Amino acid sequence: TSSGVFLLQMGWGDLGAFGEPSKETPNLDQMAAEGMLFLDFYTASPLCSPSRAALLTGRLPVRNGFYTTNEHARNAYTPQDIVGGIPDSELLLPELLKKAGYVNKIIGKWHLGHRPQFHPLKHGFDEWFGSPNCHFGPYDNRERPNIPVYRDWEMIGRYYEDFKIDLKTGEANLTQLYLQEALDFISKQQASQQPFFLYWAIDATHAPVYASKQFLGTSQRGLYGDAVREIDDSVGKILNHLQQLGISENTFVFFTSDNGAALISAPRQGGSNGPFLCGKQTTFEGGMREPAIAWWPGHIPAGGVSHQLGNVMDLFSTSLSLAGLQPPSDRQIDGIDLLPVILQGKLIDRPIFYYRGNELMAVRAGLYKAHYWTWSNSWEEHGKGIDFCPGQSVSGVTTHTQEEHTYLPLLFHLGRDPGEKFPLSFASEEYQRAVERISGLVQQHKATLVPGQPQLNVCDQAVMNWSPPGCEKLGKCLKAPESDPKKCSWPH
Amino acid sequence: TSSGVFLLQMGWGDLGAFGEPSKETPNLDQMAAEGMLFLDFYTASPLCSPSRAALLTGRLPVRNGFYTTNEHARNAYTPQDIVGGIPDSELLLPELLKKAGYVNKIIGKWHLGHRPQFHPLKHGFDEWFGSPNCHFGPYDNRERPNIPVYRDWEMIGRYYEDFKIDLKTGEANLTQLYLQEALDFISKQQASQQPFFLYWAIDATHAPVYASKQFLGTSQRGLYGDAVREIDDSVGKILNHLQQLGISENTFVFFTSDNGAALISAPRQGGSNGPFLCGKQTTFEGGMREPAIAWWPGHIPAGGVSHQLGNVMDLFSTSLSLAGLQPPSDRQIDGIDLLPVILQGKLIDRPIFYYRGNELMAVRAGLYKAHYWTWSNSWEEHGKGIDFCPGQSVSGVTTHTQEEHTYLPLLFHLGRDPGEKFPLSFASEEYQRAVERISGLVQQHKATLVPGQPQLNVCDQAVMNWSPPGCEKLGKCLKAPESDPKKCSWPH
Repeated sequence: TSSGVFLLQMGWGDLGAFGEPSKETPNLDQMAAEGMLFLDFYTASPLCSPSRAALLTGRLPVRNGFYTTNEHARNAYTPQDIVGGIPDSELLLPELLKKAGYVNKIIGKWHLGHRPQFHPLKHGFDEWFGSPNCHFGPYDNRERPNIPVYRDWEMIGRYYEDFKIDLKTGEANLTQLYLQEALDFISKQQASQQPFFLYWAIDATHAPVYASKQFLGTSQRGLYGDAVREIDDSVGKILNHLQQLGISENTFVFFTSDNGAALISAPRQGGSNGPFLCGKQTTFEGGMREPAIAWWPGHIPAGGVSHQLGNVMDLFSTSLSLAGLQPPSDRQIDGIDLLPVILQGKLIDRPIFYYRGNELMAVRAGLYKAHYWTWSNSWEEHGKGIDFCPGQSVSGVTTHTQEEHTYLPLLFHLGRDPGEKFPLSFASEEYQRAVERISGLVQQHKATLVPGQPQLNVCDQAVMNWSPPGCEKLGKCLKAPESDPKKCSWPH
Repeated sequence: TSSGVFLLQMGWGDLGAFGEPSKETPNLDQMAAEGMLFLDFYTASPLCSPSRAALLTGRLPVRNGFYTTNEHARNAYTPQDIVGGIPDSELLLPELLKKAGYVNKIIGKWHLGHRPQFHPLKHGFDEWFGSPNCHFGPYDNRERPNIPVYRDWEMIGRYYEDFKIDLKTGEANLTQLYLQEALDFISKQQASQQPFFLYWAIDATHAPVYASKQFLGTSQRGLYGDAVREIDDSVGKILNHLQQLGISENTFVFFTSDNGAALISAPRQGGSNGPFLCGKQTTFEGGMREPAIAWWPGHIPAGGVSHQLGNVMDLFSTSLSLAGLQPPSDRQIDGIDLLPVILQGKLIDRPIFYYRGNELMAVRAGLYKAHYWTWSNSWEEHGKGIDFCPGQSVSGVTTHTQEEHTYLPLLFHLGRDPGEKFPLSFASEEYQRAVERISGLVQQHKATLVPGQPQLNVCDQAVMNWSPPGCEKLGKCLKAPESDPKKCSWPH
């Protein structure tokens, strides 16, 4: 059985099937109608790189090293000047799938480090079309090089130079390129009859938001909606392609997101987290609950809905299970195999851990969520207009100082109060019971936790994408400045 | 063609089909899958009585008299001591449908006045099972009588006394009684082959929230969810009954709500308005955008979605159209016939007017909404913990003083910003264009507006339900105090 994972940055509330009021995602909604909708599915971090590292390792970022200890509870990722990346000691899903004869391709944003030792083809992927970092820019190639786009081992150009993104009009045909790559790869695999793992990890709808000409201006929601519509269309075309090739019943496909919608970019460049609190960068539901759909015609009963607490890390374990492989036994794996949930409708009792950098901020068990720390962002940043919770403000909850609640966690019942607006009374029996249970889970978790070497502490201008492999052929090698490693600054 | 209208108090975000994260409304979701989902459907007032008066008259409350002039921009309704009610001069939908041979029944809360002249059977209904006011209580029958429950002309008991509501456990079997009434009425009409209009206007999920024993504790969402599940189950049973009797293709059914979810009662007794701002009592989207589903097997294409700007008043015009009748031509009718929308997928350009009492607070045209006045509630009330926007606060928008914006309306693009969090820049061309258009609509509207005699100004303890017709037989007549008419107090 082949696997396809679509990983994007979209909010829980961005799909019609999840209640977006413009209802402009007919293909994703159809995918849900033919497959299984997960309503309680989470990412492993409210930020992109750590979530992607978690998906591919099946392990929390605090274990696989995708976090920082520079300051307390800070979100960190892999910008161009990051020195770290995915450690060799981590076993990635494609590395393991190779043992079962899979051909593995990543299309889109790798985001697990861009120095040579972190290259995806050194970590199990056979093919790559995409970029190591976000499509930020344009840069002047003096202070900062433009982000390279790779085909396999070598760069084939740079964003804004060879792969145009028009920030004024929002036009870029990148999603079309990524779509075509996916269709071609699937055709090739079908022809060669080899099982495959396709990780379609495009960076849309991350800001700066773009869409192809044919989608610009077609959405009620503006440019962000145009981008969503293009992704929706692409997903439809990929699923349709699997069906046309007659391999849909042998291909397990999962759609989800690496963090909640970035409300900081709303309304022009940011999406919707539906009824949930705040967005990307926070450990409120809006930052970490994700849209999720499993699709596997002939295996998953159509129109299913699951309340299983799921996590992107489960895609690691589930994909291994589909390939008939066992997860590594020499390390803690946080993902679980979702096949019993998907195929037999089982519910597996497991907690969700909400980390921000090096801190366990909150834990969900069943319908209860306990916050041990609360923080949206600092007063200083908030004063500059950086707001992860625009229009939302829950007294004592969306705090602008880091508030510790270790000895008396803030508790929410996410069934009655999905928006985390009404903390339960500390004096109630319900509170006592739920917190007792969750505290037990926290103790157990912390007692056995072995944090990985933090990868996101050190930044250095010299490590930026000055001269990626292949730059010589293109005449696109740039001169790196002298090495000057520093602590990275992580303000959130 | 018979018509059924289900009118409840639920929020836009309370149905699975609209993104409620517990997804506990399989029957309503099925109704949507078989019918047409309206994503941009509105009520005529953010409060119950005026909305219900608007639905039955096809006219804005400011025309039909269901508003107050006691103070500026106040929501008013029909509590027990209200002196006013639906004027005889208003033509109600059932009165008109009679001309086409319809038998009309109201099940549930009438809410258009409880003094003898306002009785629903004097305004076109042939049958009634339900109550004239909300199911508040229990009262001691001294200061205030318990609310009567009527069968047709006479009361048959009172809430809490003969129709139990256990406020501690939340148990009450009222929805089951209302369901059975509906099923029986439909059977009877089918047998007699007469067309019918059934107005299933039960007062659930209005607080105090209740559910039958078999539904208590069955929802993830607590008591409110239990009540929603019971309603969902009831709707499923009614639709199923129509199908079993073979009359579903001759029966047009519409489901909607009279105001947004009452967030003031959340989380235990209040629902969800999804991604929208605030709730009941306000003219933000959360107060007035409603879930809405049209169902008519064999006529409405299954799985349709409409962005038509709709309003509960349209059910007046649409039901007349279904009966082959014309709306009255001697008065302004605000409702439009939705059949071209429902059957041919047309989009009719029309504005939505958001009134609070005697004030036009906001207007929507296309995707733009202009606020001419903003107000959530007063600082004084807010200080007492009365909050119509819990956890939400948009600077300059969710104001606690009545703010006039007549000369420079606050403008939102509801496609990009359904949550009304990001007002457009006054300086933008987009602002100029949209406000020019909306201001034209406002001028036109105001120039032709003839306000009705306000019905909700005067309150008097003497007019309460002391001795409703039928009380003698039951030995339940109570002595009214002396008449002492006063201006009603409308704090919101």
